[in-house]
Amino acid sequence: MSELAEAVGLKIRHQRKIFGVSQETLAHLAKVDRSYVGRVERGEVNLTIDMLYKLAQVLECDPKGLLP
Amino acid sequence: MSELAEAVGLKIRHQRKIFGVSQETLAHLAKVDRSYVGRVERGEVNLTIDMLYKLAQVLECDPKGLLP
Repeated sequence: MSELAEAVGLKIRHQRKIFGVSQETLAHLAKVDRSYVGRVERGEVNLTIDMLYKLAQVLECDPKGLLP
Repeated sequence: MSELAEAVGLKIRHQRKIFGVSQETLAHLAKVDRSYVGRVERGEVNLTIDMLYKLAQVLECDPKGLLP
């Protein structure tokens, strides 16, 4: 796992909690698998920029704010 | 091609020119294939965040500055 992926994962988890949704709801809204959201938050996924923007759109935040 | 990938590609090209290196030099420094840099700049690649950071490191700029 890269430190970068871990840092991004933590930021997404933090933003998800601020937004007040579960991993399941985020996955549903972003049209991805729930386990994928879990892996992203644990820093196990090297996100694409497209997916970063998709998650940021669902979480109603600036994608740049999800980068360390 | 996604609009997002195209916008990121244009920003990378712009930053590369400010930094004053060719696609070939950027590719060499980022340890990727020269044709890959061309495809990235044309918006044909859905970059990963890792690669965004690697290119930003070579171009000595903020990775967030390469996002639209």
